Amino acid sequence: MDLKKFILDIKDFPQPGVIFKDITPLLNDVEAFKFVVDEFTKFVKETGANVIVAPEARGFLFAPAVAYAAGCRFVLVRKPGKLPRTVNEVEYSLEYGTGTLQMHQGDLHENDKVVVLDDVLATGGTMDGIIALCHKEKNISIAGIACLIDLAFLHNDDLKNKYNLKTLITY
Amino acid sequence: MDLKKFILDIKDFPQPGVIFKDITPLLNDVEAFKFVVDEFTKFVKETGANVIVAPEARGFLFAPAVAYAAGCRFVLVRKPGKLPRTVNEVEYSLEYGTGTLQMHQGDLHENDKVVVLDDVLATGGTMDGIIALCHKEKNISIAGIACLIDLAFLHNDDLKNKYNLKTLITY
Repeated sequence: MDLKKFILDIKDFPQPGVIFKDITPLLNDVEAFKFVVDEFTKFVKETGANVIVAPEARGFLFAPAVAYAAGCRFVLVRKPGKLPRTVNEVEYSLEYGTGTLQMHQGDLHENDKVVVLDDVLATGGTMDGIIALCHKEKNISIAGIACLIDLAFLHNDDLKNKYNLKTLITY
Repeated sequence: MDLKKFILDIKDFPQPGVIFKDITPLLNDVEAFKFVVDEFTKFVKETGANVIVAPEARGFLFAPAVAYAAGCRFVLVRKPGKLPRTVNEVEYSLEYGTGTLQMHQGDLHENDKVVVLDDVLATGGTMDGIIALCHKEKNISIAGIACLIDLAFLHNDDLKNKYNLKTLITY
């Protein structure tokens, strides 16, 4: 399926000079969204993962559906102030400055095999942060990482060389 | 299934005097999450809806999975500054003050039958706002509204009397 026709380029959003990838038309098309969830589900099953981890808000658009279809647990990564119990946290690199991501302590269990899922792989800073956050729990492994969109011109091959990486659309 | 054992009461979050319902353990349990998605999917099919509408961020935890399972389109409701194309918007009532919700213009189509889905029905202010936002498009109908948790002590029966309401856990 040609998924690119469901992704809109929005110039100068959220700031001048940026071309934003609008994925909402893909969610508004039954066949395209089903194709994406099914592709991710196939990948998750191949990795042998038992847990999906994803960050708010756009990671939530895909990851719980994949967890449902693949029969995996789902663990949330959120920005500060959103998770009510005791959290682990990491600082991660943004294009300008840094941000903080949190996960409830104990949400991942010993020997969990995790697939981290997000909408866009840009510089890789968010993905690096989430992987570091997962490893704050003992003896978990990263079975794979998956993103709908790969902005390949924004990152090197470090993540691809180190992890089992699945992406569905490349720019 | 006794879903209440997957919901934690967190006292004084996000502010003193509030008991926050933490739904994350439900997402971290394969059977409980599957049960919830399947119950919502059954409801959506009964209503004859062809579109699910849900707000960030916790509405996203359930609604895309239900859209996937029910074969419906999914349309996002977000806070200001997140949707990149031309939007419709509404102000809605919060416990203290008001907020703004947005939806891309044209994401709902004429004759769409909508189920609005969210995690918690509290005062009903968010649900009222989303319904008003849907009606900014011509000739759509609200086939149903669904929430995981009904905080019944916080609202009257107006929404229940007017719409086909499905909730799975009542406090």
